[in-house]
Amino acid sequence: MGHVIFIGAGPGTADLITVRGARLLGTANVVLYDALADPTLREYAPAADWVDVGKRGFSGLPGRDSNGQARINELLVQYGRTSGTVVRLKGGDPSIFGRLDEELAAVKAAGITCEVVPGVTAALAAAASSQKPLTRRGSGRSVSLATAMTRTGDLHATRTADTEIYYMAGRQLASLSQRLAEAGWPAGTPVAVVSRAGWPDQLSSEHTVATLGEAQALHEGRPTAVVVGVGATNVSPSSLGGEEAGPAT
Amino acid sequence: MGHVIFIGAGPGTADLITVRGARLLGTANVVLYDALADPTLREYAPAADWVDVGKRGFSGLPGRDSNGQARINELLVQYGRTSGTVVRLKGGDPSIFGRLDEELAAVKAAGITCEVVPGVTAALAAAASSQKPLTRRGSGRSVSLATAMTRTGDLHATRTADTEIYYMAGRQLASLSQRLAEAGWPAGTPVAVVSRAGWPDQLSSEHTVATLGEAQALHEGRPTAVVVGVGATNVSPSSLGGEEAGPAT
Repeated sequence: MGHVIFIGAGPGTADLITVRGARLLGTANVVLYDALADPTLREYAPAADWVDVGKRGFSGLPGRDSNGQARINELLVQYGRTSGTVVRLKGGDPSIFGRLDEELAAVKAAGITCEVVPGVTAALAAAASSQKPLTRRGSGRSVSLATAMTRTGDLHATRTADTEIYYMAGRQLASLSQRLAEAGWPAGTPVAVVSRAGWPDQLSSEHTVATLGEAQALHEGRPTAVVVGVGATNVSPSSLGGEEAGPAT
Repeated sequence: MGHVIFIGAGPGTADLITVRGARLLGTANVVLYDALADPTLREYAPAADWVDVGKRGFSGLPGRDSNGQARINELLVQYGRTSGTVVRLKGGDPSIFGRLDEELAAVKAAGITCEVVPGVTAALAAAASSQKPLTRRGSGRSVSLATAMTRTGDLHATRTADTEIYYMAGRQLASLSQRLAEAGWPAGTPVAVVSRAGWPDQLSSEHTVATLGEAQALHEGRPTAVVVGVGATNVSPSSLGGEEAGPAT
């Protein structure tokens, strides 16, 4: 019986993986990876068998008739039973929108031991590269991470945290603008959009709730983090000292 | 004029820093670090001048009459002007509860160039080590990160996301139990408490909203992540396939 290690590769370029993740990746006999991971991560495990299970994968291996989650779960169990150390490499952090729950359940049900190595999730990379911290003194005490798309294909937005980040495809920004307004965000609320956070071809743009739709052409077809509220504003020298507002909630 | 690099060290042991963070740490002439960072991180920059600006720091350097944020801002500017590459090393991720906004504002106001390297925030390490993903198929689509303590010293809780994580000191878990109930969480809602996430002496315990107070003795005096809701439950084989509930929001 093997051992499965779920590793967050971080978003974007290979050097956003943790030192622990890189080291454990180097112990893999087999790596199951998805399309969001940087191909240069292979340099950490050049002798391993790399198996693409991402959306653009599943071509060329016999018996792969579906690119669905059930098939990934099956492969994890199959390799986990027979292949020594198996790394399941995921973009970002495995515990956030990584469907780790389903993969963990499959591995545990098969009696295979496992561990999880955390990673940098896209929202943190977006905040770092745009130098817009997600929490702010006095005014930004809560942050929410959500997928805008529900499982039934509807778009959903809330107004519950000082800063909200939506993980989504870039093609629905006009609809999100409307949903945010309906959720009660004032039209002038700042919105920062970052697509392909952490990659060399990352794109960032600044909008408001009312004008978010204009971002769609720029970010279309790219994994996108949409930051709404206090965390979307630029840091200015006025952030220094002075009177504080109370928590916004 | 120097250059300031804000680096998230990750929570806990030194190998939770990113590969990029470790590499850039090695370029530092001066490192300003706080008490939450693992001392073995020094091995990445053995020749640098390491300056402790954490809560247990500020002893022994001339002119350090305060351990407050204003003094850290001053030191950043002072070293940034004169000391080549200055690394500001922060536990966790700098954009989440790291007071990065204030430090960035000070550095920018002084005209010093800077960059930010993201890190793993404590909630992600807590989820990884306890193997309890923060998002779940069908039932866990939103995650919030918040500090329970307001700036006026009150304890604050909400019920807005499927999974909520409170970053707090471990000594107020009994009060948090009450605030969560007042916010509308049913008494039986699962709560997972992880203190010193990512460290060898990490402690985890499982409770409900009603029984959370019993966790206080275990976690007292330790930085603690309190996970409330769907993300506090263990993954079970029943997570596999079958019927899905709609989003809980």
